[in-house]
Amino acid sequence: MKTSELIKRYRITDGSKFHLKQSDPGDTHGWKSELKKEASVHLEKSIKRLAELQDKLYAQDQHALLLIFQAMDAAGKDGTIKHVMSGINPQGCQVYSFKSPSTEELDHDYLWRSLKALPQRGHIGIFNRSYYEEVLVVRVHPEVLAKQKVPKALLGKKLWDQRFEDINAIETYLTRNGTTVLKFFLHVSKKEQKRRFLERLNDPAKNWKFSTADAEERKHFDEYMDAYEDAIRRTASQRAPWYVVPADNKWFTRLVVSAVITRALEDMNLAYPTVDDKKRGELKTVKRALENE
Amino acid sequence: MKTSELIKRYRITDGSKFHLKQSDPGDTHGWKSELKKEASVHLEKSIKRLAELQDKLYAQDQHALLLIFQAMDAAGKDGTIKHVMSGINPQGCQVYSFKSPSTEELDHDYLWRSLKALPQRGHIGIFNRSYYEEVLVVRVHPEVLAKQKVPKALLGKKLWDQRFEDINAIETYLTRNGTTVLKFFLHVSKKEQKRRFLERLNDPAKNWKFSTADAEERKHFDEYMDAYEDAIRRTASQRAPWYVVPADNKWFTRLVVSAVITRALEDMNLAYPTVDDKKRGELKTVKRALENE
Repeated sequence: MKTSELIKRYRITDGSKFHLKQSDPGDTHGWKSELKKEASVHLEKSIKRLAELQDKLYAQDQHALLLIFQAMDAAGKDGTIKHVMSGINPQGCQVYSFKSPSTEELDHDYLWRSLKALPQRGHIGIFNRSYYEEVLVVRVHPEVLAKQKVPKALLGKKLWDQRFEDINAIETYLTRNGTTVLKFFLHVSKKEQKRRFLERLNDPAKNWKFSTADAEERKHFDEYMDAYEDAIRRTASQRAPWYVVPADNKWFTRLVVSAVITRALEDMNLAYPTVDDKKRGELKTVKRALENE
Repeated sequence: MKTSELIKRYRITDGSKFHLKQSDPGDTHGWKSELKKEASVHLEKSIKRLAELQDKLYAQDQHALLLIFQAMDAAGKDGTIKHVMSGINPQGCQVYSFKSPSTEELDHDYLWRSLKALPQRGHIGIFNRSYYEEVLVVRVHPEVLAKQKVPKALLGKKLWDQRFEDINAIETYLTRNGTTVLKFFLHVSKKEQKRRFLERLNDPAKNWKFSTADAEERKHFDEYMDAYEDAIRRTASQRAPWYVVPADNKWFTRLVVSAVITRALEDMNLAYPTVDDKKRGELKTVKRALENE
């Protein structure tokens, strides 16, 4: 399985050429579901590789990796995080699930709570939803914006342009300072979302996973797609690419996501730290003292 | 392998009867190193079980689990966390490694930074070192206390008694509010620590893991043991037990720790949430609407 092909296939580095309609949520790069078993073996290997790389990332303590997951409900954000990231050492990985902002958070600028949660050097930070909600749900539901207490005079016509500009600026800043930023849009079709919703509704054991608010949001599906398309167009770059990952087939989504993350870590040229001559000398003294103890 | 025996064997719930000298760092419950392979299979199973239980803990969103790891350098805190906890979903698990306090942290009371880092409901929180350092390193090195800026008049003879009392009170509070508190002392012998230090010093690839400060601390090994014994005597309780885990054999340490954590989660009677009649009615309406879409 040449997963390197997948990385290129779904990566968007030049937003201006991006059209969401050209992305098929059911795409599997021509790989049939007969390959599911092979894919699962491949995923397992990839997870092991990920753990090795993370160990070096942590030890080297220079780079950080920020993974942003955005998607419609039931597209598989939680499942992807669980299946791709279970296996790595939780000591070097933090997941933040951003919910509706609290009163304290609303009293700050919209990036505040995300900036507080950024991964430290050596760590992988995962945002399950992120500041991108500020140009997604906030755009689809203008009433949310009203709650944000931004001075009215600042809510001009250029609001979204400004938000995209600010988001690009912050991501540029992060990459300049050692954080690699990867953004995943798990692209599920409206049809598959319906199937998954009904699955949760039909199975009593899965009922708790369903919120009636999810069904309300579904009514805005097309508006969300427009907002996603615009967000990706305006914020995809070589520096902080978007990956528009087909999400109608879970096995395939996980394969793509794990391939992208593994490659990003491989590109960092991670290595365990070495000690300099001065420290080597100190260690020699310590060693002698220990041996003669 | 009856790991349930291990849980009892190393649990301290009544500190007054505890003497560290009676605990053997090399103990393996009579299990010989021939069992290492069996132990590793057992550990793998235990890790899978842990992941299942964590999934329910997260879904139920009522209990929290706080795991505190304390030990001398090279006793295996990091390795134990890595090997026992890699496999669980990082979305429901946070590890905090407490280093020397920052200036901001020193400007607060000594529990402040720990309380901020407590796990939320549904989560597992791991403290790699913890507020127990306040009755360990601070006790062995009185000069650290001077830096803490506590008003001099409050640093009386009863300081340690008061710290133990406050720690017990906070742990009681936590358990009363749904957080299970488990405390692990990974008990390594002075001899085995020397062996591991030399291993790190002799292998250039491991040199970076060694800090000359570790060797300095080793000079206070016996004072640390006294401080640990006193801390365990004064803070072990039925509510928040200490586990004094033999740490001279890594395979055995991991087996004990995973058994204790798994059992603690099993004792919570975790279950996936169910929905009430009101919500069931709402879901029915949603389901009909979706089907007729």
